[in-house]
Amino acid sequence: MSRLRVPVIRGIGDDCAVIRFAANQEAIVTTDFSIEGVHFRREWHPPDSVGHRCLARGLSDIAAMGGKPLAAFLSLALPAHFSQRWVDGFFDGLLKLASRHKVTLAGGDIAESPAGVLADIVALGSVPRGTALLRSTAKPGDRIYVSGQLGGSAAVLAQFLAGKPRISGVANQCHFYPDPRLPIGRILREKAIATAAIDLSDGLSTDLTHLCQESRVGAEIDEALIPLANIANSTVPLTFALNGGEDYELLFTARPRSAVPRRIARVPITHIGRIVPGSGITLLTATGKRQKISPGGWEHLSKSRRAFTRG
Amino acid sequence: MSRLRVPVIRGIGDDCAVIRFAANQEAIVTTDFSIEGVHFRREWHPPDSVGHRCLARGLSDIAAMGGKPLAAFLSLALPAHFSQRWVDGFFDGLLKLASRHKVTLAGGDIAESPAGVLADIVALGSVPRGTALLRSTAKPGDRIYVSGQLGGSAAVLAQFLAGKPRISGVANQCHFYPDPRLPIGRILREKAIATAAIDLSDGLSTDLTHLCQESRVGAEIDEALIPLANIANSTVPLTFALNGGEDYELLFTARPRSAVPRRIARVPITHIGRIVPGSGITLLTATGKRQKISPGGWEHLSKSRRAFTRG
Repeated sequence: MSRLRVPVIRGIGDDCAVIRFAANQEAIVTTDFSIEGVHFRREWHPPDSVGHRCLARGLSDIAAMGGKPLAAFLSLALPAHFSQRWVDGFFDGLLKLASRHKVTLAGGDIAESPAGVLADIVALGSVPRGTALLRSTAKPGDRIYVSGQLGGSAAVLAQFLAGKPRISGVANQCHFYPDPRLPIGRILREKAIATAAIDLSDGLSTDLTHLCQESRVGAEIDEALIPLANIANSTVPLTFALNGGEDYELLFTARPRSAVPRRIARVPITHIGRIVPGSGITLLTATGKRQKISPGGWEHLSKSRRAFTRG
Repeated sequence: MSRLRVPVIRGIGDDCAVIRFAANQEAIVTTDFSIEGVHFRREWHPPDSVGHRCLARGLSDIAAMGGKPLAAFLSLALPAHFSQRWVDGFFDGLLKLASRHKVTLAGGDIAESPAGVLADIVALGSVPRGTALLRSTAKPGDRIYVSGQLGGSAAVLAQFLAGKPRISGVANQCHFYPDPRLPIGRILREKAIATAAIDLSDGLSTDLTHLCQESRVGAEIDEALIPLANIANSTVPLTFALNGGEDYELLFTARPRSAVPRRIARVPITHIGRIVPGSGITLLTATGKRQKISPGGWEHLSKSRRAFTRG
C-alpha cells in the first residue's frame, strides 16, 4: 500500500509535517540532544560522524521499542558565520544513515547558537498497536541478553581524552558511526522473543537500572559473560562496558525457556544474567564474589542534568 | 472513545513515547527552538512567559494546520548550576498552557548548555485524513484574512529595546502570553472555510510571502484594512504589523463567495486583501499608491539562519 511506503504526506515547507499511520499502528516518538562539548568535540569528531551519531541516538530508541523509523526532525543551532563545509558534512552523515534506514528528514528548525553547535533530533516511528517493547515488562526469572560488544565507544573516547587518538581503522566505527540496532529490535518484537528492552546509551549499569526500576525488579549479571569490545587489539576494561556509554546496542530480557538465537541480523546475542525479585543490580565477579553495582552513569564529556531523559 | 481521550499510551520513562491515532487521523509534527538572546532575554521575560511562549510556538503551527494538539516533547539545555526557581517557573508557564489546550508533555531531553538557556519544543497533533490546512492551496481570487490584531508583540519588544519597558497591563499579554489560535484553526478546517493557512510568527510580509511561494501566487493587501494592535493607548506603526513577528495570529485565504464570520472563537477576523496571479506582494497604501513589499523578515532579537524553518 502506498500509504505505508510514503508515510510522510507533507514534509518541509508547511507549518507542520503530515504523517499517515496505518490503522493498526501506533506512533513512537523520541528526542535527543547532541551538544558540542557534551556529546562531541569538533576537534575529535568529523562532521559526518556528528550528523550520523545525532540521528543514531534517536534511531536507537526506536530500535529499543521494536519500531520502524519513519521520519526525523532536526533542530540545529549553529554559531554565527559558521563553516558551511562543516554543516554540509554534518548533513552528509545524517542523511546517509537516514537513507540506509529509509527515514525521511521531514522538517526541523535552524537558529543561531550563542556558543557551539547544538542539535536536537526527533525520531518518529511506528509499531503495530500494543506490541512496542517496553522497559517495564521484565519479570523475575527472565534472562538478560545484550547485542554486540560493549565498552568500545567509551574506550575510543578514552584514547582521545588521554591524547592518544587512533582514529583510523574500522575498530573505531563503534564510536564514530554506530549502527542503530533496528533489525534486531524489529525481530525481537515480531518473533515475540523479548519481554522487555532498552538501548545501551548510558552504559550497562545505568540502562539496566532503568529497566529494573521501570519493571520493579532486580538483576544479577555475570562478569565472565559480558561481551567486551576489542579496541586496538585489546579487550576493553570492564568499567567501560558497565559505565561507558554510547554503545547503542540493545539490552533485552526473555523468558528462560525462550529459544533466543545466538545471532540476530548477523549480530551476536549474549546471555549475561537474569532478572530477580527485589531491586538493584548484583555483579557475580570472575572470582566468585557478589558485588552490588550502582548506576555509574555515563555523563558524556561533561556532567549533564538528566531530569526526564529518554534512553 | 477512550483512545481519543488518552492518546498518549506511554509517556516519560521509556525509550520512546507511544501515541495512538484513530484510524482516520493523520499525525502532524512541528519543532521550534526558543533560544536565550534570540527568542527571549532572561532580564526581560519572566520564566513562565519563556515556558509559555516556547510551547505556544509549536501549538501555533498545529493551529495553522487546523489540527488538534496531543502531545509535546521538550528538549531543554541549561547552563551548569542554573536556578531551579527559574526552571520551575519555566515549567509552570509551559504546563499551564499545555493544560489549557489538553496537551500532554510526553517526554524530551535535558542537558547542560555551554551558554544560556536553549529549548526545543516538538508539538504533535492530529487532523482527520486529508483535511490539514496547507500553505500551498491558495488560488487567485481568494480573499486574505487575518485573526486578531497585528504588530503588538513587536511593539512591546520595541519598548524593551528602547529601554522603556511597560511590563504591566494586559496590553502586553500578546507578547508575553500569546494564546495559540487552536479554536480558530479547527473551525476553519471543520467548516471548510479556509483554502490555505499559515501562522503569523515572522510577520505578515514574510509569512504571506511563504504562503504565496508555496501556492505559486501573488497577493495584494490594503494598508487601510490591516488590523493594527493597540499598545499603551496608541496604534502600533504599520511596520510592526508587516515586519514584526511573534503575533501568533492566523492568516488564511477563502473563496470570494465564502461566508467568513466576523469573529471566530470570539476573535475578530479581518479581510485584508486578495490572492492574485503571479508572484510577490503589493501593498495598496492609504494614499492610493501600489507598493511592492518584500519579506521584512522578523529576525527575533538577533539574526538567525533559517534554512528549512517551519512557521
